[in-house]
Amino acid sequence: MSATRFFELPSPFVLRRGGSLAGARLAYETWGELNPAGDNAILILTGLSPSAHAAAGRDDPSPGWWEAMIGVGKAIDTRRFFVICVNSLGSCKGSTGAASPHPDDHLPYRLRFPDICLEDVAQSAQLLVAGLGIRQLKALIGPSMGGMSALAYGVMFPGQAPNMVLISTAPHSLPFATAIRSLQRECIRRDPRWLDGNYASDSWPEDGFRLARKLGMVTYRSAQEWRGRFGRKRVSQPSTQAFGREFEVEAYLDAHADRFVGSFDPNCYLYLSRAMDWFDLADHGGAVDIALAKMQVRRALVIGVPSDILFPIEQQREIAEGLRSAGGVVDFYALPSIQGHDSFLVDFERFAPPVADFLGCL
Amino acid sequence: MSATRFFELPSPFVLRRGGSLAGARLAYETWGELNPAGDNAILILTGLSPSAHAAAGRDDPSPGWWEAMIGVGKAIDTRRFFVICVNSLGSCKGSTGAASPHPDDHLPYRLRFPDICLEDVAQSAQLLVAGLGIRQLKALIGPSMGGMSALAYGVMFPGQAPNMVLISTAPHSLPFATAIRSLQRECIRRDPRWLDGNYASDSWPEDGFRLARKLGMVTYRSAQEWRGRFGRKRVSQPSTQAFGREFEVEAYLDAHADRFVGSFDPNCYLYLSRAMDWFDLADHGGAVDIALAKMQVRRALVIGVPSDILFPIEQQREIAEGLRSAGGVVDFYALPSIQGHDSFLVDFERFAPPVADFLGCL
Repeated sequence: MSATRFFELPSPFVLRRGGSLAGARLAYETWGELNPAGDNAILILTGLSPSAHAAAGRDDPSPGWWEAMIGVGKAIDTRRFFVICVNSLGSCKGSTGAASPHPDDHLPYRLRFPDICLEDVAQSAQLLVAGLGIRQLKALIGPSMGGMSALAYGVMFPGQAPNMVLISTAPHSLPFATAIRSLQRECIRRDPRWLDGNYASDSWPEDGFRLARKLGMVTYRSAQEWRGRFGRKRVSQPSTQAFGREFEVEAYLDAHADRFVGSFDPNCYLYLSRAMDWFDLADHGGAVDIALAKMQVRRALVIGVPSDILFPIEQQREIAEGLRSAGGVVDFYALPSIQGHDSFLVDFERFAPPVADFLGCL
Repeated sequence: MSATRFFELPSPFVLRRGGSLAGARLAYETWGELNPAGDNAILILTGLSPSAHAAAGRDDPSPGWWEAMIGVGKAIDTRRFFVICVNSLGSCKGSTGAASPHPDDHLPYRLRFPDICLEDVAQSAQLLVAGLGIRQLKALIGPSMGGMSALAYGVMFPGQAPNMVLISTAPHSLPFATAIRSLQRECIRRDPRWLDGNYASDSWPEDGFRLARKLGMVTYRSAQEWRGRFGRKRVSQPSTQAFGREFEVEAYLDAHADRFVGSFDPNCYLYLSRAMDWFDLADHGGAVDIALAKMQVRRALVIGVPSDILFPIEQQREIAEGLRSAGGVVDFYALPSIQGHDSFLVDFERFAPPVADFLGCL
């Protein structure tokens, strides 16, 4: 049974870069109860690929993607907070995106889907929050791309998210991250089955998408972790294909690609990947610091890990210092996790305590 | 006019992993003069892609790939030394490799080429050196893959290279580097025009090879360099293709791919790329330290840069410490170049002085 609920966006929902969506909706899940004053809500905006199913709940007891963080007695304590997690607009986990049916012909949008940016993700999420009767969030939490969307939310709706938890994120992409994403997109686009986005539903550009996912994994984890975990270990059964896999690290990448491909729409991936490259907090006022100052953040927790090569720790420091300069009380942690960008998804021993402490003091 | 000379390897030339080559040869160039005692020779083993044309000379005045380092009065001074640079066995710049004609049918070897490893590269180079009448090298210089080949040379021919210059190299690949190379190989193999290596000479798997080269560039340079160089600058004419290039860093990668593709054979790339992953100095005695001790290195210069993510500085430190423990006099430099692995090809201001000093004292 699914715990997913849907929120109908106003129709048309006008997008920031031009274009609009008719009959669009957001998929979301909630945990805990909204109190009568409506002031105990926490919104979680996600990274590129997760669904709204961040944690188990009454209607869907299967573990969510942030199971260790959300629940009774956990860092994000559902006894105290009403927790909302949104599947980003443009994704394919229930919210409207390139894989959704076009209202005109009920065929998938594919590349007819309009340009989407993280400001659209933020705006649609804010409409959901307002639609749930919430005027101000208790806290807004965003890891990775979700942190960029949270920054967009903050600057577009000043004062509505006075407490923010920003994890392994950035005010904009730097060229290394853009280069990696550009290559991931090219891997998909070069797959002969991509067909300019018009692949059949039973014939996805899986080869290119697998490559894109593997390249992602190389940048989501860290060389240090892999050195300890795989070293130079070989697989017991090497591939019989010419130049096929021989090392355990190659088998690990294959396994991750197997799990991902088939569970995410390649076109949606292209749209959201590009949205991350486009996003620049500095677009909101001319400079990152100006934008951070507009947000009226009173308290913030900013966390990152030095082993992250995709969202380097300097970018979290930049956010922390900018919010502090604007008068916010900011806790900044550079956690020594070795799992790179993905640390927030696996190293709960390090990530849970600061989040619990921060929310506990609100 | 070409300065390339050829050295005929003994036929058959037996390879370490089984298989052999009939009528194989090495392409090489030399600068300076071998002295009557035959004891002023310096051998340079190259990275994956360079030819033997490391510098201009009488017969070929065009600039070589290490022009700033080799010549009269330069760090590798051709007034004093007889300098040899070899195109690695298995490459496609004159030495025998997968693109060379098979002696049986004069068609390219393609995947009929036997497995090649860096020990074969080293052994063939040593035969050339001996063939030139040189019993002991004055110095052996190896950057990147060339450093791995140099380590193989050192351990296979103890005492024949008592002075070594090892640059941005490693005793073996770590899983991050192997993962990147595995993905590069997969990019080529997934190109429909690769055809299991049987591409026509006028129809190379260019799309996949371009992707592989771009992924290489992402790991050859550093995020820090690109941040300063490109920032978030856009190209003046964005691509009209869906999800095509918009940022300068993407145009930079395109330009590098344009230059490379068409100048290197994709199958040769696959063979040498895998040879790098296979290489493990520890295979020569059971551990890296044991192998380093076997080499009888009296003096060594070991250089790297902390911004190198492909051959991290810890690996150069490991080599330096191992050689030192074995009784060698070792100069180790962690140079603060920001150009990552490629620093030795561009930051001559930093790389030339230690090399000049080291060779000057021999």
